[in-house]
Amino acid sequence: PTSGAENTLRQRKIPTVPVVPERRFDPKAPKHIQEQPWTLKNFWRHFNWLHLTLLFSFPCIGIYGILTTPLHTKTLIFSFIYYVFSGLGITGGYHRLWAHRSYKAKQPLRWFFAAGGAAAFEGSIRWWARDHRAHHRYTDTDKDPYNVKKGFWYAHIGWMIILQNPRRIGRTDISDLNTDKFVVWNHRYFIYLATFMAFVVPSLVCGFLWGDFRGGYFYAGVCRLVFVHHATFCVNSLAHLIGSQPFDDTNSARNHYITALVTLGEGNHNYHHAFPNDYRNGLRWYEYDPTKIIIWLCSLVGLAYDLNTFPQNEIEKGRVQQEQKVLDRWRARLNWGTPLEVLPVMEFEEFLEQSKTRPLILINGVVHDVTGLQHPGGQGLLRSAFGKDATAAFNGGVYEHTNGAHNLLSTYRIAVVRGGMEVEVWKSGAGEKIPMKDTFG
Amino acid sequence: PTSGAENTLRQRKIPTVPVVPERRFDPKAPKHIQEQPWTLKNFWRHFNWLHLTLLFSFPCIGIYGILTTPLHTKTLIFSFIYYVFSGLGITGGYHRLWAHRSYKAKQPLRWFFAAGGAAAFEGSIRWWARDHRAHHRYTDTDKDPYNVKKGFWYAHIGWMIILQNPRRIGRTDISDLNTDKFVVWNHRYFIYLATFMAFVVPSLVCGFLWGDFRGGYFYAGVCRLVFVHHATFCVNSLAHLIGSQPFDDTNSARNHYITALVTLGEGNHNYHHAFPNDYRNGLRWYEYDPTKIIIWLCSLVGLAYDLNTFPQNEIEKGRVQQEQKVLDRWRARLNWGTPLEVLPVMEFEEFLEQSKTRPLILINGVVHDVTGLQHPGGQGLLRSAFGKDATAAFNGGVYEHTNGAHNLLSTYRIAVVRGGMEVEVWKSGAGEKIPMKDTFG
Ligand code: HEM
Ligand code: HEM
Ligand SMILES: [Fe+2]
Ligand SMILES: [Fe+2]
Ligand SMILES: [Fe+2]
Ligand SMILES: [Fe+2]
Repeated sequence: PTSGAENTLRQRKIPTVPVVPERRFDPKAPKHIQEQPWTLKNFWRHFNWLHLTLLFSFPCIGIYGILTTPLHTKTLIFSFIYYVFSGLGITGGYHRLWAHRSYKAKQPLRWFFAAGGAAAFEGSIRWWARDHRAHHRYTDTDKDPYNVKKGFWYAHIGWMIILQNPRRIGRTDISDLNTDKFVVWNHRYFIYLATFMAFVVPSLVCGFLWGDFRGGYFYAGVCRLVFVHHATFCVNSLAHLIGSQPFDDTNSARNHYITALVTLGEGNHNYHHAFPNDYRNGLRWYEYDPTKIIIWLCSLVGLAYDLNTFPQNEIEKGRVQQEQKVLDRWRARLNWGTPLEVLPVMEFEEFLEQSKTRPLILINGVVHDVTGLQHPGGQGLLRSAFGKDATAAFNGGVYEHTNGAHNLLSTYRIAVVRGGMEVEVWKSGAGEKIPMKDTFG
Repeated sequence: PTSGAENTLRQRKIPTVPVVPERRFDPKAPKHIQEQPWTLKNFWRHFNWLHLTLLFSFPCIGIYGILTTPLHTKTLIFSFIYYVFSGLGITGGYHRLWAHRSYKAKQPLRWFFAAGGAAAFEGSIRWWARDHRAHHRYTDTDKDPYNVKKGFWYAHIGWMIILQNPRRIGRTDISDLNTDKFVVWNHRYFIYLATFMAFVVPSLVCGFLWGDFRGGYFYAGVCRLVFVHHATFCVNSLAHLIGSQPFDDTNSARNHYITALVTLGEGNHNYHHAFPNDYRNGLRWYEYDPTKIIIWLCSLVGLAYDLNTFPQNEIEKGRVQQEQKVLDRWRARLNWGTPLEVLPVMEFEEFLEQSKTRPLILINGVVHDVTGLQHPGGQGLLRSAFGKDATAAFNGGVYEHTNGAHNLLSTYRIAVVRGGMEVEVWKSGAGEKIPMKDTFG
C-alpha cells in the first residue's frame, strides 16, 4: 500500500510504512530441532543422517579398499589426474564461476566444471553456491553456514553433519542461478550425476583401459573423493584459522601457502574475502593458484571471458589501511613519554633550583630529568646542559639529533616550564631591559 | 667578559654577546690545495701520496706474491684466522669500543683489539675514531669525511687518496681518547706497531711454526691485509648504498646481509646509524653479527662490561615512525577519490533528473556515477538503487559492505548533494508534513 500524496515535482510515489503485526511468542508453534535442547530422547534428530552416513562411510570404504586392493601405477596416476579434475570443478566452477560470477564461461567449460564438481560429490551447484554466498555475506556470524567461530571441526565438517535450521542461514540472492537452465538441471539430477562421475566413471576408465575395475573404484573413486572433500573443507576451516591478514582483518579469512597448496590455490583466502569477485585468489603471478592459471588459459582460447579483476588501486588501498591498523596497534603498545597536557607545570626558577640537586635539562619548553642516561655524544656535553635551556644546542646548535634521540628525549619528560620556550637571557633580567614594544614593530 | 648585572634571585651570571670581529675576505691568506682548482701544474699536490702509495702497492705486492709463492694449507688457515683477528680489531675495538664507547673493556681486551687493529693497518685508534665520529655526526654532508654523496669510490677509498682539507672535516669531541694513555701511546708508535703486527708477526708465525716465511708474508700478511682493507672500506661505501632502511631513512645508512657478511656484522648499518652506541649492529640474535657475539662472550668472562643496548621501546618507536613514513608515501600514490571539498554540489532534484539517463546512486550524501561497475553483489541489487538514496542499504540495510567496497565507492564520486544525507521520504514532500519543532524536542 503506497501513500497517495502524488508530488508532481518529484514524480515518485513514496510507500508509507506498512502496519507490521506485532510478533507474539507462540508456545505452540513447532520449533526447529536446533532450537530445542539436546536430550537423550531427541539427540538423533539433531543429525543430518544422509550427510553423516556419506561422510563417514567414504573414508571407511576407502580404508577397506586400501587394505584389500593392490595399487597399480596407472591407477595411481589416474587418481591424481581425477583428483585435480574434480578439485578444479569445485574451485574453478562451483566457487569462482557460479558462486562468485568472477568470469563468464562458454558451454563446454561449464560442462567440464560441472562434471568435475559432480565427481567431487559436494552437492549441486545451486546448493553449494547458495551456502557459499551466505558465507561471504554473513562471514563469522550465526547466519554464516560454516561459521568458523564455532570451531575448527564445525567449519570443517560439523555444519554438514548437524542438521541445519534453514531459518538460521542468511538469505542470499540466487535468482541468477534459478534462471539458469543448466544449473537447475544439475540441481535436479545431481545425485545420479554425482554417483556416475564420482564412482562409475573412474571404475570404467581404469577397468576398460588397463583392467583395474576394483582399483579404479577404490582408489580413483573413493579414496580420491575423501581427499578432495577434506581439501575443500579446509578452505572453510584452515583458511579461516591460520595465516596472515594483509588486506582486511575485520573477518577471519587468512592467507596461508599451505592451505593454498592443498586447495588448488584457494588458500589466499584473506584476499578472496576482501575481493570475492576477482577470478584470482593468489594475487601476484608467483602466488600459488593453479585455478587462476587454468581460467586464464581458458580465456586465451575463448572458453572463458570477461575475467574480473579488482582494480590494483583498490587492492593497494586495502593493504595500506590494513598496515595502518597494524602500525597503530604497535604504536599504542609503546611508551611515547608522558603527554605534554598531563605534565605538571614548573616555574623556571623552580627548574633552576632543582637543577642543583638533579640532572635537569630544559629542551623545547619541557624539563627532562636525564638520570641514568648514557649519552652517545658523551657525558661531558650532556653535563654541560644541566640546569640550562639546551633547545638550540639539541636541535642543531651543537648537534642536530636524530629522530631516535628525539624519541628517547620524550621519555625523560618531567614537567612543562611555565610559558615554555624560555631563554636564559630573558629570565635572567637582561631580557627585562629589552623594550617589549620593539617586538611588535 | 660577562655583564655584571648580578641577579640574586637567579644567582647566575649571564654572558653578554661578545663583540665578534667582522670577517673580511683576505686575498693573501694561504688557501688549502682543495680550495684551489685542479691544474696540470698542481694536480699532484691534490693527492695524499703516503696513502696512495700504500693502498696501491699492497694489492700489487699481493698479486706478485700469489704468482710466485706456493700456498700451504696451514698458511691459508692461519691467514683466515689472522683475517678475523685483524677484522675484529677494527669492528670490536676501533669501531664499537673506542669510536662509539658502546661498552667498556679490561686492559687485556684493549691490547688484543689494538693489536688486531694494528694488523689491519688502518691508522691509529685516535685517527680512526676522530674521522668516524665526524662521519656519524655529519653523515652525508660535506663535513662527513667519507661522504657517500660523492659516490661509491670516494666513500670506499677516494677520501684517503685525495688529500683532505682539515678545515672541511667536521669537528668532534675526542677528549676521552686524548686523555687515554693507551690510545695516545698507540697513536704515537702506530707506524711501528702496524708494520710489526701486519707483516712481521705473520711471517714469523708461519716461518717458525711450519717454515713458510715467504707464504706468511705474502698470504697472511699482504693478501690478508688487502681483504681486511676492502671489507672495512665497504662499510663506508656499500653499507651506505645498498639495502633497506627500517629504522630511519633521513640518512644514507642501510642494512644488507651481504655487507654484514663481508664486515663481521657491521652491515646492519641503518640500525647502527640510528643507535650508534648500541654494542650490537645486528639487533636480533639471528642477524649476522659475530662482533656482537665476541663482545658478549667477553662480557661473560668479565673482559667486557657495561654493554650498552638501546632500549627496545626506543628501537621500536623508530621502526614505527619509519614504517609510517613508507606507508604515507604509498598512500599518497593511490587514488582515494575526489575529495569531498572539491566535488561540485548538486540539487536533489538534479540528481533525480540525471538518474533517468545515467546510473547515479546517492550514498552518504554523495552522488556516485557507477557506470561500468561490475557489482560483486549482482547487477540487480545495484540497479535497484539507481536514482535513490541507498545509504542505509549500502551500510547494512541490505548488506554491510566491506572496507574494500567503501574504498571502491569513493572512486565513483561525482557530486555532493545539497544539504547532504537527504532521505527520499523527506524530499518527496512527505517529510514536509513532519513538524520540524518535534526534532528539537
Ligand atoms: C638531554 C637529552 C639528550 C638526549 C636524550 C640525547 C640523545 C642523543 C642520542 C640518542 C644520540 C645518538 C643518536 C644521534 O646521532 O642522534 C646523541 C648524540 C649526540 N648528542 Fe645528544 N642527547 C641529549 C642532549 C644533548 C645535548 C644537551 C648535547 C649538546 C650540548 C648533545 C650533543 C650530542 C652530540 C654532539 C651527539 C653526536 C655524537 C656523535 O655521533 O659523535 N646531546 N644524543
Ligand atoms: C553503489 C556502489 C556500490 C559498490 C561500489 C558496491 C561494491 C561492492 C563490493 C566491492 C562488494 C564485494 C565486497 C564486499 O563483500 O563488500 C559488494 C557486495 C555486495 N553488495 Fe555492493 N556495492 C554498491 C552498491 C550496492 C547496493 C546499492 C546494494 C544493495 C542495494 C549492494 C549490495 C551488495 C551485496 C548484497 C553484496 C554481497 C554479495 C555477496 O557476497 O553475496 N551493493 N558490493
Ligand atoms: Fe571463506
Ligand atoms: Fe568465496
Ligand atoms: Fe656509516
Ligand atoms: Fe659507527
